[in-house]
Amino acid sequence: MSRLDSFIRRLKAQRACLDLAAHLVRELDGDVLELGLGNGRTYDHLRHLFPDRKIYVCERRVAAHPDCVPPAELLLLGDMRDTLRAACGLLGRRVALAHLDPATGEGVASRALAAELALLIVPLLRPGAVLVSEPAIDQLGLTPLPLPESVAPGRYNLYRYVSCRSSA
Amino acid sequence: MSRLDSFIRRLKAQRACLDLAAHLVRELDGDVLELGLGNGRTYDHLRHLFPDRKIYVCERRVAAHPDCVPPAELLLLGDMRDTLRAACGLLGRRVALAHLDPATGEGVASRALAAELALLIVPLLRPGAVLVSEPAIDQLGLTPLPLPESVAPGRYNLYRYVSCRSSA
Repeated sequence: MSRLDSFIRRLKAQRACLDLAAHLVRELDGDVLELGLGNGRTYDHLRHLFPDRKIYVCERRVAAHPDCVPPAELLLLGDMRDTLRAACGLLGRRVALAHLDPATGEGVASRALAAELALLIVPLLRPGAVLVSEPAIDQLGLTPLPLPESVAPGRYNLYRYVSCRSSA
Repeated sequence: MSRLDSFIRRLKAQRACLDLAAHLVRELDGDVLELGLGNGRTYDHLRHLFPDRKIYVCERRVAAHPDCVPPAELLLLGDMRDTLRAACGLLGRRVALAHLDPATGEGVASRALAAELALLIVPLLRPGAVLVSEPAIDQLGLTPLPLPESVAPGRYNLYRYVSCRSSA
């Protein structure tokens, strides 16, 4: 399998998971949180899925296609470890869907970063919210959800947030 | 359709066209020419399709994944309009498959560049060679070929090079 093959497979898995997640949270009010803007393609997909919700985007520095730059008031600029901490007041317990794809490659460093970010994302989620994540996350309160049929286990990940209180 | 949708569609069209082109030139000796390395994903796909052929790559400046950097002797560094002219001695009439995807976006400038590059690519092609191109090219000696079934007309393009001499 070439890198082109695996890239296509990864993008299709991402899209299938986002589409399913959008369906899963259709009855749950709340905002959307995109961790990483990149070129803005996934953000644009989220805009199509959630035309009526606020989509907040964390990014260190905007380098997206001009058509895919979020409005300034929804853009949380800086290191995600800082902006997510600061976003608690703005977004705490208001996010219905979050998408984490730090795209730092595979391996130990990427998983460590994902775990660190997950700790900061969970306090922003509403009970019942869905987290779509490329790296797997092992985090209290996040329950793995079945993937779309087209997505092989581990290629992408879906979690439902069940607050510790409601699961107790 | 989101930008994510159209990107996936474009990558799948590219892959389907390259796969078909590889099949079409299986009986034709000659080198492979990739116009633009980018992140190296398509180059990696070409390596999988043509494990036994030389794959020359034109690129202004290498910024690919380290695993996808061509050997120095097959890398033609610089502005393609210069390197293609200079490559005539090295590659003239020896290329069996060329892939052109300048990825400069859509529009007039992109088509003008493609037309300019096509003029420089044609002298490198063997009669019977296949040119796979994202932008459409209207160039003497290049005959459009049917696309793979999965690819909508105009999304990607395949041409067979028939030399002016042999078609006369």
